[in-house]
Amino acid sequence: MNLINREIDRHLLANSGEPPILYEAAYHLIRAGGKRLRSLLILLSCEAVGGKIEEVLPITVAAELIQTASLIRDDMMDCDDYRRGVETVHKKYGNNLALLAADLLIAQGVWMVGQYGTTELLRHVGAAGVDMCEGEALDVLTEKKADEDLSLERYIDTVKRKTVAFIDASTKIGSMTGKGTEAQQEVLGQYAESLGIAFQIRDDVMDITSSREVTGKSVRSDLRWIRSNYPLIVALESCSRERRTECLDALSKGSIDCALDLIRETGAIEAAMKTAEDYVQSAKVALQRERFPNQSLLEELADSVLQRDY
Amino acid sequence: MNLINREIDRHLLANSGEPPILYEAAYHLIRAGGKRLRSLLILLSCEAVGGKIEEVLPITVAAELIQTASLIRDDMMDCDDYRRGVETVHKKYGNNLALLAADLLIAQGVWMVGQYGTTELLRHVGAAGVDMCEGEALDVLTEKKADEDLSLERYIDTVKRKTVAFIDASTKIGSMTGKGTEAQQEVLGQYAESLGIAFQIRDDVMDITSSREVTGKSVRSDLRWIRSNYPLIVALESCSRERRTECLDALSKGSIDCALDLIRETGAIEAAMKTAEDYVQSAKVALQRERFPNQSLLEELADSVLQRDY
Repeated sequence: MNLINREIDRHLLANSGEPPILYEAAYHLIRAGGKRLRSLLILLSCEAVGGKIEEVLPITVAAELIQTASLIRDDMMDCDDYRRGVETVHKKYGNNLALLAADLLIAQGVWMVGQYGTTELLRHVGAAGVDMCEGEALDVLTEKKADEDLSLERYIDTVKRKTVAFIDASTKIGSMTGKGTEAQQEVLGQYAESLGIAFQIRDDVMDITSSREVTGKSVRSDLRWIRSNYPLIVALESCSRERRTECLDALSKGSIDCALDLIRETGAIEAAMKTAEDYVQSAKVALQRERFPNQSLLEELADSVLQRDY
Repeated sequence: MNLINREIDRHLLANSGEPPILYEAAYHLIRAGGKRLRSLLILLSCEAVGGKIEEVLPITVAAELIQTASLIRDDMMDCDDYRRGVETVHKKYGNNLALLAADLLIAQGVWMVGQYGTTELLRHVGAAGVDMCEGEALDVLTEKKADEDLSLERYIDTVKRKTVAFIDASTKIGSMTGKGTEAQQEVLGQYAESLGIAFQIRDDVMDITSSREVTGKSVRSDLRWIRSNYPLIVALESCSRERRTECLDALSKGSIDCALDLIRETGAIEAAMKTAEDYVQSAKVALQRERFPNQSLLEELADSVLQRDY
């Protein structure tokens, strides 16, 4: 984590330009910290297959830049005011600078892949980017056709694109740079898929149960916009048709209390955490098909996905 | 042009996914047509140095995808309703889908450079992207500090980043793929710089003098937002201090008549067109330092920048 943060700091210091406020806006959220999950996955996957982590370190910066760009957009789409304990970029700098800041981060990330990576890596980044846009679009559209689309099947499909794709690409970037075998890459891919779903479910739970003081970001967004959210979907699937319609009607009118009650009554939070734990377990089981020297670190990273409060 | 359009059509047909409306939004403006200036520059620069244009054809699609993404954002920032004779993406599909559509186009473009290009090309694309964001930010910020920043010096600096960088990258992509010498790349770079400035000045003139019926896009945006616009800056530089202040005050209150009068009285349109012609001339003169087999086509392309009405 220190390695990654030092590399990010080095990049930010070395890459500032005109106008300064654009760079302030672009670096605002990266400077505020973050879990650096994608970066850690890149480093650990590289190490797992016997690669040198220094070789892949610059690419972790590219991953954080692109990830941050996607957060800037997410916050714009959700009209959220807080992220990582600070104001969101569009709130602090306005929509126009937020748009340009996100593009700047993507352009820098692309440049870094060109500088330190290969065209093969680039294809994975590009493909993951397409998946992320598709997943986000599925999520955003939920708000328009709430009823049909709030199903667990659609949820998993959405999450695989919006969250898993980039997490999977991260392990691929690490294991490819470290020259891992196909079997190793495959195993790390399975690990990434389970870990990614667990990560998203935990995120969804926190959106319902936590507060801005704890998470550092706006909460209850998923309810306000009727986005795909695991506890919400579980709750809606385990109640009567009438109750479901009543809740969705209330949500579409901006009232979230009915949904919060339903989630509480149906035990949807506990069910969600249980499912997330199963996914973490699957991630760890997948690892056992290979002997990675840093297996315990990979397991720890999987566990941390559920232990986090932000 | 036919080659390019056929290649674009092939890409759009082969690359559609879920949800369909995201792809509709992403392809909306590309399907509406366009000048394909960057693509033509890539092809002609490749041909100029003796390269095979088939090799660079897929990259022209990447350039159009990325260029279209930047137009989607421009239209969002200017709140413009029309482009290429059709509604803008955010107007037709809403802000959220417009954001995702632009990202999708960038991700596809990045993937294509990974598939058909080199990491060297990618660095040029990334660096041009950074320049574009900087130029756009300088332009957007003009609206906040109208007085100091509306100078010809700042104008040229802004245009070099927001417009010239990508046009220059286009000739570089073409001449690098075609394995041109450094001297050839240098000459094509000078050609691109002059052509790019002429292109932008012509765009600025049309924003003032033309209509949506003719250009297919919203006009007078530069005045409504006090963006960097060549005739406006020339007019403001050739009047009294009092008149300048009066006009800028009126513009910041949303009234554009004073500026239109000033532009007419000072002959700023004619001055702008004369300057644009000088730049086209410089572009053609630059070409004479090399003997390109398709020199007349490159000259024709430079001329077309001023002859266009849209």
